[in-house]
Amino acid sequence: MIRVTVWGENVHEQTNQTVKALYPNGMHTVIAEGLAEDPELETRTATLQEPEHGLTQEVLDNTDVLTWWGHCAHGKVEDAIVDRVQKRVLEGMGLLVLHSGHYSKIFKRLMGTTCSLTWREAGEKERLWVCNPGHPIVQGLGPYFELPNTEMYGEPFGVPTADETIFISWFEGGEVFRSGLVYRRGNGKIFYFRPGHETYPIYFNKDVKLVLKNAVKWARPEGSIWKDSAPNIPVEKAPEKIQIKGGKLHEEGEAGFK
Amino acid sequence: MIRVTVWGENVHEQTNQTVKALYPNGMHTVIAEGLAEDPELETRTATLQEPEHGLTQEVLDNTDVLTWWGHCAHGKVEDAIVDRVQKRVLEGMGLLVLHSGHYSKIFKRLMGTTCSLTWREAGEKERLWVCNPGHPIVQGLGPYFELPNTEMYGEPFGVPTADETIFISWFEGGEVFRSGLVYRRGNGKIFYFRPGHETYPIYFNKDVKLVLKNAVKWARPEGSIWKDSAPNIPVEKAPEKIQIKGGKLHEEGEAGFK
Amino acid sequence: MIRVTVWGENVHEQTNQTVKALYPNGMHTVIAEGLAEDPELETRTATLQEPEHGLTQEVLDNTDVLTWWGHCAHGKVEDAIVDRVQKRVLEGMGLLVLHSGHYSKIFKRLMGTTCSLTWREAGEKERLWVCNPGHPIVQGLGPYFELPNTEMYGEPFGVPTADETIFISWFEGGEVFRSGLVYRRGNGKIFYFRPGHETYPIYFNKDVKLVLKNAVKWARPEGSIWKDSAPNIPVEKAPEKIQIKGGKLHEEGEAGFK
Amino acid sequence: MIRVTVWGENVHEQTNQTVKALYPNGMHTVIAEGLAEDPELETRTATLQEPEHGLTQEVLDNTDVLTWWGHCAHGKVEDAIVDRVQKRVLEGMGLLVLHSGHYSKIFKRLMGTTCSLTWREAGEKERLWVCNPGHPIVQGLGPYFELPNTEMYGEPFGVPTADETIFISWFEGGEVFRSGLVYRRGNGKIFYFRPGHETYPIYFNKDVKLVLKNAVKWARPEGSIWKDSAPNIPVEKAPEKIQIKGGKLHEEGEAGFK
Repeated sequence: MIRVTVWGENVHEQTNQTVKALYPNGMHTVIAEGLAEDPELETRTATLQEPEHGLTQEVLDNTDVLTWWGHCAHGKVEDAIVDRVQKRVLEGMGLLVLHSGHYSKIFKRLMGTTCSLTWREAGEKERLWVCNPGHPIVQGLGPYFELPNTEMYGEPFGVPTADETIFISWFEGGEVFRSGLVYRRGNGKIFYFRPGHETYPIYFNKDVKLVLKNAVKWARPEGSIWKDSAPNIPVEKAPEKIQIKGGKLHEEGEAGFK
Repeated sequence: MIRVTVWGENVHEQTNQTVKALYPNGMHTVIAEGLAEDPELETRTATLQEPEHGLTQEVLDNTDVLTWWGHCAHGKVEDAIVDRVQKRVLEGMGLLVLHSGHYSKIFKRLMGTTCSLTWREAGEKERLWVCNPGHPIVQGLGPYFELPNTEMYGEPFGVPTADETIFISWFEGGEVFRSGLVYRRGNGKIFYFRPGHETYPIYFNKDVKLVLKNAVKWARPEGSIWKDSAPNIPVEKAPEKIQIKGGKLHEEGEAGFK
Repeated sequence: MIRVTVWGENVHEQTNQTVKALYPNGMHTVIAEGLAEDPELETRTATLQEPEHGLTQEVLDNTDVLTWWGHCAHGKVEDAIVDRVQKRVLEGMGLLVLHSGHYSKIFKRLMGTTCSLTWREAGEKERLWVCNPGHPIVQGLGPYFELPNTEMYGEPFGVPTADETIFISWFEGGEVFRSGLVYRRGNGKIFYFRPGHETYPIYFNKDVKLVLKNAVKWARPEGSIWKDSAPNIPVEKAPEKIQIKGGKLHEEGEAGFK
Repeated sequence: MIRVTVWGENVHEQTNQTVKALYPNGMHTVIAEGLAEDPELETRTATLQEPEHGLTQEVLDNTDVLTWWGHCAHGKVEDAIVDRVQKRVLEGMGLLVLHSGHYSKIFKRLMGTTCSLTWREAGEKERLWVCNPGHPIVQGLGPYFELPNTEMYGEPFGVPTADETIFISWFEGGEVFRSGLVYRRGNGKIFYFRPGHETYPIYFNKDVKLVLKNAVKWARPEGSIWKDSAPNIPVEKAPEKIQIKGGKLHEEGEAGFK
């Protein structure tokens, strides 16, 4: 079983009639239900409003892959929780960043860049092209899939070069966008996936659901946890025999500065 | 002329006798003097203790390449100044991160990872091997250069895969380390360079000085500034004629959430 | 001065009336004239039909950047000349691969992949979006530029992940393509640029000419030549004093196998 | 079951007494036996001397991961077989390139570079450091492992930047080398692993065997086969309705040039 935690900001669903009508129980619930169609995936949800945003150390320690949807309340996510999530990703937890999550603290933190883009909310058609038909994330799709109504995101997308571009979108209004990008940071796998605008029924779409199921499986931890420790290797434990020469700043056995 | 700002934490030089003896006017001064040997480089210095750490918006706007040395006072660098430096790097300013600067806020911010490593302060010998003899940063060096006394940094180094590995170090005590790494983030070029321990006269070494001069020239801005704006492209400005369909979250002309 | 050699296959110009009418002196001549608008660029041309395809060792040794256009006669390029060009790129010569050059021997050799794509010749509109507005190659362009009539190239494009994606194209018929990609191989810089179909006046277009001028300057050699030699380092020249242990395959001083 | 084909050049084992004594049944046999310790792996061997070098289309179609050891007879491998192996890797077959296989036709073909390095055969000690302790390939190892007698390979290593550096070696004689590198080309995963000199019992070493077992599992195909076809998309099959404009080179339905 792959243990998935679906994180939702859960604000528009409470405050906007269009979103509420589409997702009366929240987008996170619908995303989790879509994932749960796959018997290998065990899902739970967590939201901004819960204590520690539902992301306690225990929850994260028992999460293989975390999905993240946020938009209007990125600034309300506590830095301490972002630290915790980042640490788990670098150790090996998978992370799926969805749509407006491009501006979330956790994504900007992991990318180190602006994560900026251009946008337009006109309900236009989007066609997502597959850039590597053999990749695990696109299994079951044809050469492309379409969404009849989407918000447009356009280039330039201010992110580091991805390990691989999985999708590129064509928009009815004339723009293009790198809509599926994979990264490895520390020991964790990260997938950014563009679709997901809250005023359209994106997370009910069968192709979107398929991509998310595939991506969770791709992002599951392989190997083991990478526990960061930055150890001082004392002279007597050097692999080759050496003797101390020259001046020193640290007393023997002292920890380093961070 | 390439305008270089040499930033120094300038703490050990005030508090540790060994460091003070080597660098009575601060490490930043010696680094700046080394760079100024090249008539193409115009240098100034800035330190932690100055107002805004010497990195006002005006200073940064007039800096082509910034070099960063810090160690025991990373935590004292104000977040607002780190924001400002990061923004300038993404726009196109070059950045050289030196030695213990691997744990600086600005480097961790740009990398998104732990930037962790192993270490030992034993004055052992280090040999830095050139991984691409044609690269601009290594011009004037042979296949390798040596430092008779250094602090050891060892793998694993917790950074994203670099665009290119420029140096790998061999240590007398038996470790290895990726000692020269280049990255592009946004429109800015970044060079991490390992040597620089404060208790040895590293910044007086001719090979180290040569690498720094080469690296500053390599990291100078090319092209133009990338000013981030994340604009809303209104429907009437879409390259292809479209009409609004479906629901909307934003009122016309409203700015996006960040 | 940057010395540019513009290589042209020069077959369609002789055999197809449409192409002949557009480019009576060959596409290579028009490409070279466009580059020569920049006083920093010194151009010459070379074609398939010349002895050694016009790419003698002397010509290549005096070329800073080579541009390559080929289509129907990729198979007629001699392997020995491809070897020579590849060697020079790895040493540090810049290479611009144009349009149908994606299937040239030299590009497939340097990429190691199929370099495959989908295509359609319908004279449709193409819009090329800039993915990093600060990059040297896009200076002088706006957020995008358009070509009223082009052949379509579509994803998946069978190439390794680029160091950076410079352009992505939107096509009237609904496809997308990574139309500008930069790579570093050995010590050489490579730029693949999609536009260039022979039946439309692409190389007279001012934006295309601007991109090519920018790209030649970006691809010019920096640093020095990387001369490959794969040397045997004899025991007495090891940086650390060692003695021979165990069995040996090679006699002392013998060259390695290649 | 993962189906592994272990390819061996099998020349030194016939002609050199030291190698024959270590590997009387060939290095490929010992490599295959090491892999077969894992019940998930089903191995077979193939050698240069067999018809089609033992790599018929049928064998390759039934191979999930291929391992490649060659040295003095790289030039005797037929180009048609190299084409076939390359095609299968790009479709999705995993490839492990061992030691002197850095100069094999298949590795140079997939990398596009010289794949050059420096070397010394002195039986010196090698210590391989793990660069990401969480990576699947290094599971079961400590921070490093040692080989008491090895041939030295030194930087510069003439390969493209890897997706991730898995091992870096420290040599007794003073050199360093990127000894474990992973790449993705097309849909195939590639692992280069340095140890394997024929005059020492490298493939009997338990750490080497562990790395090979781990690496085969890591390199197994995920997702599906990427069958390359470079299709012409006729106008009537364009996702958006368009009409033909301007001149054409190809007649309707004609195949493209390759």
